[in-house]
Amino acid sequence: MDLIIKNGMIITSSEAYVADIAIKDGKIIAIGTDLEEKGAKVVDAKGKMILPGAIDVHTHLAMPFGGTVSSDSYLSGTRAAACGGVTTVFDYPMQRKGSGILETVKGRREMADTEVCVDYAFHCIITDLNDGKILDEFEEAVNYGITSFKCFFVYKKEGMMVDDATFTKILLKAKETGAITNLHAENPDLIDLNIEKFLKEGKTSAWYHYLSRPEYVEAEADKRAVHIAKSVDAPLYIVHMADKEGLEAAVEAKMDGHDIYIETCPQYLEFTSEVYKREDGRNFVCSPPIKGQESQDALWKAINTGAIDTVATDHCPFQSYEKDWGKDDFTKIPNGCAGVENLYPYMLSKANEGKLSFNRVVELCSTNPAKIFGCAQKGSITVGKDADIVIYDPEKEFTISVDNMHSDYDHTIWEGKKLKGYPVQTYVRGALVYDNGDFVGTPGFGKFVKRVGRK
Amino acid sequence: MDLIIKNGMIITSSEAYVADIAIKDGKIIAIGTDLEEKGAKVVDAKGKMILPGAIDVHTHLAMPFGGTVSSDSYLSGTRAAACGGVTTVFDYPMQRKGSGILETVKGRREMADTEVCVDYAFHCIITDLNDGKILDEFEEAVNYGITSFKCFFVYKKEGMMVDDATFTKILLKAKETGAITNLHAENPDLIDLNIEKFLKEGKTSAWYHYLSRPEYVEAEADKRAVHIAKSVDAPLYIVHMADKEGLEAAVEAKMDGHDIYIETCPQYLEFTSEVYKREDGRNFVCSPPIKGQESQDALWKAINTGAIDTVATDHCPFQSYEKDWGKDDFTKIPNGCAGVENLYPYMLSKANEGKLSFNRVVELCSTNPAKIFGCAQKGSITVGKDADIVIYDPEKEFTISVDNMHSDYDHTIWEGKKLKGYPVQTYVRGALVYDNGDFVGTPGFGKFVKRVGRK
Amino acid sequence: MDLIIKNGMIITSSEAYVADIAIKDGKIIAIGTDLEEKGAKVVDAKGKMILPGAIDVHTHLAMPFGGTVSSDSYLSGTRAAACGGVTTVFDYPMQRKGSGILETVKGRREMADTEVCVDYAFHCIITDLNDGKILDEFEEAVNYGITSFKCFFVYKKEGMMVDDATFTKILLKAKETGAITNLHAENPDLIDLNIEKFLKEGKTSAWYHYLSRPEYVEAEADKRAVHIAKSVDAPLYIVHMADKEGLEAAVEAKMDGHDIYIETCPQYLEFTSEVYKREDGRNFVCSPPIKGQESQDALWKAINTGAIDTVATDHCPFQSYEKDWGKDDFTKIPNGCAGVENLYPYMLSKANEGKLSFNRVVELCSTNPAKIFGCAQKGSITVGKDADIVIYDPEKEFTISVDNMHSDYDHTIWEGKKLKGYPVQTYVRGALVYDNGDFVGTPGFGKFVKRVGRK
Amino acid sequence: MDLIIKNGMIITSSEAYVADIAIKDGKIIAIGTDLEEKGAKVVDAKGKMILPGAIDVHTHLAMPFGGTVSSDSYLSGTRAAACGGVTTVFDYPMQRKGSGILETVKGRREMADTEVCVDYAFHCIITDLNDGKILDEFEEAVNYGITSFKCFFVYKKEGMMVDDATFTKILLKAKETGAITNLHAENPDLIDLNIEKFLKEGKTSAWYHYLSRPEYVEAEADKRAVHIAKSVDAPLYIVHMADKEGLEAAVEAKMDGHDIYIETCPQYLEFTSEVYKREDGRNFVCSPPIKGQESQDALWKAINTGAIDTVATDHCPFQSYEKDWGKDDFTKIPNGCAGVENLYPYMLSKANEGKLSFNRVVELCSTNPAKIFGCAQKGSITVGKDADIVIYDPEKEFTISVDNMHSDYDHTIWEGKKLKGYPVQTYVRGALVYDNGDFVGTPGFGKFVKRVGRK
Repeated sequence: MDLIIKNGMIITSSEAYVADIAIKDGKIIAIGTDLEEKGAKVVDAKGKMILPGAIDVHTHLAMPFGGTVSSDSYLSGTRAAACGGVTTVFDYPMQRKGSGILETVKGRREMADTEVCVDYAFHCIITDLNDGKILDEFEEAVNYGITSFKCFFVYKKEGMMVDDATFTKILLKAKETGAITNLHAENPDLIDLNIEKFLKEGKTSAWYHYLSRPEYVEAEADKRAVHIAKSVDAPLYIVHMADKEGLEAAVEAKMDGHDIYIETCPQYLEFTSEVYKREDGRNFVCSPPIKGQESQDALWKAINTGAIDTVATDHCPFQSYEKDWGKDDFTKIPNGCAGVENLYPYMLSKANEGKLSFNRVVELCSTNPAKIFGCAQKGSITVGKDADIVIYDPEKEFTISVDNMHSDYDHTIWEGKKLKGYPVQTYVRGALVYDNGDFVGTPGFGKFVKRVGRK
Repeated sequence: MDLIIKNGMIITSSEAYVADIAIKDGKIIAIGTDLEEKGAKVVDAKGKMILPGAIDVHTHLAMPFGGTVSSDSYLSGTRAAACGGVTTVFDYPMQRKGSGILETVKGRREMADTEVCVDYAFHCIITDLNDGKILDEFEEAVNYGITSFKCFFVYKKEGMMVDDATFTKILLKAKETGAITNLHAENPDLIDLNIEKFLKEGKTSAWYHYLSRPEYVEAEADKRAVHIAKSVDAPLYIVHMADKEGLEAAVEAKMDGHDIYIETCPQYLEFTSEVYKREDGRNFVCSPPIKGQESQDALWKAINTGAIDTVATDHCPFQSYEKDWGKDDFTKIPNGCAGVENLYPYMLSKANEGKLSFNRVVELCSTNPAKIFGCAQKGSITVGKDADIVIYDPEKEFTISVDNMHSDYDHTIWEGKKLKGYPVQTYVRGALVYDNGDFVGTPGFGKFVKRVGRK
Repeated sequence: MDLIIKNGMIITSSEAYVADIAIKDGKIIAIGTDLEEKGAKVVDAKGKMILPGAIDVHTHLAMPFGGTVSSDSYLSGTRAAACGGVTTVFDYPMQRKGSGILETVKGRREMADTEVCVDYAFHCIITDLNDGKILDEFEEAVNYGITSFKCFFVYKKEGMMVDDATFTKILLKAKETGAITNLHAENPDLIDLNIEKFLKEGKTSAWYHYLSRPEYVEAEADKRAVHIAKSVDAPLYIVHMADKEGLEAAVEAKMDGHDIYIETCPQYLEFTSEVYKREDGRNFVCSPPIKGQESQDALWKAINTGAIDTVATDHCPFQSYEKDWGKDDFTKIPNGCAGVENLYPYMLSKANEGKLSFNRVVELCSTNPAKIFGCAQKGSITVGKDADIVIYDPEKEFTISVDNMHSDYDHTIWEGKKLKGYPVQTYVRGALVYDNGDFVGTPGFGKFVKRVGRK
Repeated sequence: MDLIIKNGMIITSSEAYVADIAIKDGKIIAIGTDLEEKGAKVVDAKGKMILPGAIDVHTHLAMPFGGTVSSDSYLSGTRAAACGGVTTVFDYPMQRKGSGILETVKGRREMADTEVCVDYAFHCIITDLNDGKILDEFEEAVNYGITSFKCFFVYKKEGMMVDDATFTKILLKAKETGAITNLHAENPDLIDLNIEKFLKEGKTSAWYHYLSRPEYVEAEADKRAVHIAKSVDAPLYIVHMADKEGLEAAVEAKMDGHDIYIETCPQYLEFTSEVYKREDGRNFVCSPPIKGQESQDALWKAINTGAIDTVATDHCPFQSYEKDWGKDDFTKIPNGCAGVENLYPYMLSKANEGKLSFNRVVELCSTNPAKIFGCAQKGSITVGKDADIVIYDPEKEFTISVDNMHSDYDHTIWEGKKLKGYPVQTYVRGALVYDNGDFVGTPGFGKFVKRVGRK
């Protein structure tokens, strides 16, 4: 035995109970009352909660976008992850016209493998079918451990959008090969129409980023995607759901027995579109934009009814000077915000406030992500699983600031947010990587998670 | 006074009562019991019904399509109309890339004016905005009497499809100018995907025409169109609704107070997709295809609840040799069927069977079309209106056959259909144009109906 | 010919056009342009509208209730009707335990026949089946002209409530005999529970009348009634619909093809529950109470979509001293308000403001009532129908006051309401009964309308 | 350590993994790989599944009903439970007019304590408020461990029905005291109406039991109950949901954030109303009756979407001679069927067939019941919980017969049902009570479960 964490309250998606946890070779080997220590290192977690490490299934590290690259490298991004209790990140390599999936993924693995501080997996974004060759590659990709493919309904001009036919082909081939399709759902035509109009009228502030892609723009795409997935009977995972009407359509389809999964993000749960009226509104610019109060309320309701499956971050930070490019033209603001270090602390703080249960946070941020995306060795404090563990102090007070974050960015939309409760230690496969404010892990320690497809 | 029709039972959208009708200068000048004859020609309609002439708001005469031209000319098509109790037809000239609206419409008027046997109006199909110049022309078009514009969500390869942005621009400009937007709603990507698959599998019969554009294909487009029209708060008229799910979405929007209108056609009310399994299935090929029993039931229900606004024909016949082009490949079948002569007799026969009321037939086929499309002088047996009148014998038995139709085609999907009740006379502005089986009108007598926009 | 009304704009449920109307023996015998006068009395209505007289299908005249009797007799109530453009009223005799339907109805006819100033019909309220004998009497009642029966889901303690079994029996027997069932839908148990609680807490103002029967109380009963009517496939007419949720359930059932009819009243369209906070809140006490803004908005929406079938008044006035009984205890306020004289002027004034069309007012207040309740000789300006006619001056300004009303009450909830447009003359079967502010009719002139059952 | 169960695959509501389980003093004290045996008794469960014991939250033991008493005593009923893998049963003592809750419950404890073979808890049925005294007793009852109260919307004549007011009072008081309200939802008036009609028509077979309480009868009551619970914002648990429409209403309310729980039973998942046409149809008579295929499909869908919370049995067997009382009159058939021994084997067999997951069976039959009804020491294979454990052999084949059941009845509706997989051992708090076909426990060993109220 290498390590025993004693006396903590273990939180699973279903239970909360006090017990000891024994760890050996990076795995949980026993859970019990009064486990014998047998020379293992002992950590006393009395009064603390023991959680499975969060799995942030939506990050964009070192991602070329909007004329620059998102500011967190695999190193700084996964360092921040570790410090926020995230023990596995899913990144989104993007296949480009002419490139293959494995070619794309392997290229990114080369960047990542020497840098990653926590475990990681890849979804792969598909932007072009290369005359069908990409579809032929799905099976090999799944065997390699890439069991999810993402499409954009937006970014038409950027050449990233897929049309309904391509989307449907991906849905069907993913289903056939045991993979799942992720979707960014917004309607590009309606966005462009609004942008054209606003720019013509000289309306260029961040507020018009929101108004050019308001609720109905996202809802149309959500509803279309759900309709198609239902029609061809294929699984669909909608990323960063942010609007009420689309959410309701997805929930209705789920309740009708369809294989639809819904992800939302902390920024949609905490803020409303009012932030775009702020002086620093551009820092909040992400796509889809944060919506109005009604949508936020609907998202929280779905968090509590169980209709939302996961909370992830869409972590994609840019530096202030880059955000400033859009000071006078919202279309020039790089889209994206930081979040990987805030996900678990934010959601757990909300549990501490009574807004949802701790079990539900574990389910949303760890157990469900592991199940939906095929990494059975992760996502729960269970004998036999990887010892990806967070020790959480529910009494610790913490105020988020760019100064106490571990990413490579110079501002955060979460600045000043006070949290009740905070992680005090993070273990990845039994190794301590974060200790009370400090990153103590090792770049390159993280491992690629080879996922298993759906049967 | 020119003419008195005596003793008939007058049917309006709301009432049924026996009275005499006096006509002068093509107008109804009096309705009363025991009107004095004063030397007018007298027609005794005792035991007959007196209906306003039908307005078929959906025809394609002499229309270039599918590598040929629809077989009814303005002459033969409107001759058939007259013989079926249709006193006004709406035709669909198509604006093509580079052409203007008025240029298009006037070109067609030159073809039509010398040929038309009944009154006529034009919707105008928009296929390209010509860098916005087309939108600038809407106001002039409305002033000219063209107050409705049609878009296709399909026919992508044929260059007729508009994308969501163009559709939205048309919706908004139509609203601004007092016009309304008509839409053919099917999803082209899903169709093409299915076609590609079926052709690859060697599935080429007419049945695969249906399977390549089944219920969900139309429903997606219906729902998207309704969503967009609601979102931008503009009126929308969906042509030839044929599927249950799309219908329900449109009805829900109507009941939520949105300005949505729904048209269906007799072929969707009478047949089901089973016809495509017939030896002569290709003759039934139209788009959208006829759907399954559930959709037919839903359409009839909406006919009776009042949710459907109009029944029109999508009249677009082709000759047998042209239909035969697709004998071994359903994609080569010219899309379209005849109907203008069958509309009123079919619907009235259904009223005779008790499937709906005679008032409702008048509303669907005459009163509503006149109101929705801005021709106040038409659509009702009311003092002051054009004397567009059908005398209908509810006891007359009639079996439809290509031999007793007055179009220029060599087969009909309605062959052998037995009807209870049939029109015996049709008057256009007081002039007899159809008399008991025979066309007795004059080509060129029909007039262009200058319509008035919505305020 | 007895009378010609010339040059007015005739409004039907569907059309609006200028023509002359000829009347003989109480019937409309001709409508035309430039009708010959032939010695008839001529009324020039140039610039005025000619409307069918309103049919107020919901009044309670001389009704014993709440320990008193509603203050309008058949004389004063129908005098007020005439002066408000109502040419037919439907009153609600109430069958009591042990009494028969015809016995009840004939008793009330004796009271009414010598007093009524306009035509009248009776629904009959059923409160007890008398061991089934009442059901056996339905057929005879229908033959006598009583083709609608009303149930209360409330007034349990007052012995007027029917339970679900009795209601269902009535639904089925009414259907079988060609009659229709009217329902007052509120849940008495929930009301009593609330009242008990409020009285215990010393909450006794009129505001607690509303809070003891808020939206959900009515909605429960609406939904239950609709469910049962659908389940046993029988027609149902819900009187004075006042809440959004129940309305939506009823509309959904209608759109699903069920034979459901919906009535609302002017008080629900004009006021909100806020009136119960007023000093004179008790004067607005009626049941169901006026609801919140959301419900009012939903009612107006349904007025415009066509989902609501009729607007009637639930006319049931009480004198101030009677209303004052409940000054310190809302349960002691007699329930009911005046309205018969305000119905048509109010709704037409709303049309004048553009809130709905004049055609729709005619449909709601005259044409639909006549159709739903089987009096084909009424409800429209159509040749052959009774000459029940209102001449309406759309420019006339009018401020409602108890001083210019013709009922027998000493206050009105409509006091001070300014209207644009007002009736200037009312004719019942061709006889002038109201002329520019003055009642000019004759008590006893009104006739009992023998209605015809649904086939 | 007392006992180690080695090598089994542990199934929780969320995970499935192989590990050893150590038990001491009736509790699970450790779960791990290769736990040391230390002299404990060792059971090798290699190739078997280890499940938490089922909690059947709906049984009626020794219940006076229908002129007799249900045939299973606390002894025979809990013996059967043990043999079916049920380690806790919830029974339903019924408070009668004039009696108190604790008086009722304690009376039944006296009967149960010496007999019960597994642990047990009590819901308490409320039939009369005794002028409010019953409500005053709720808090004491909760403190005693009775945290759920049941109402009947049916059994009006039997004096068991509560009206809407009583139901609402119970809902509110239960909420206030941390309890929850269970409801049997059917509409008694509609049932009585149907029964009266069928008996009059001489329709007396078991088929008319179904037709007298078909889908709409249950749906009305479900919808009313959900409406009221939503309106007063109180938790509601609907027992034995059997119909689609009511289910959908309940699910919609859940998804709208309301605190609604849904139970169904194996008989509704396995059979359809067709069984009532069988010669032995009366044996299937229970209330609500088993519904049609559409309802069964809807229930299975809700099992899989997560919308249904629990599966329990409504175990209430009668002997053949008692069922025979209704041979010629379905109203004389005692209502109820056996099930406690079939619940877990049936549901697990369905998991084996792939109809749902084993995790979901555990959730429905054990984890959720424990959570909803406040017995945290039960419902999961988790360190610290009671060692209520079932060892299940997924390969064992079993055919249900009255001969191999352990209840006190002489027939079963499950006769001949073949199952794939069957429990081989059941442990209650670490004690073996069932071993491969034989009951090996001790009457009186079972303990009353003192439950904890909702906060």
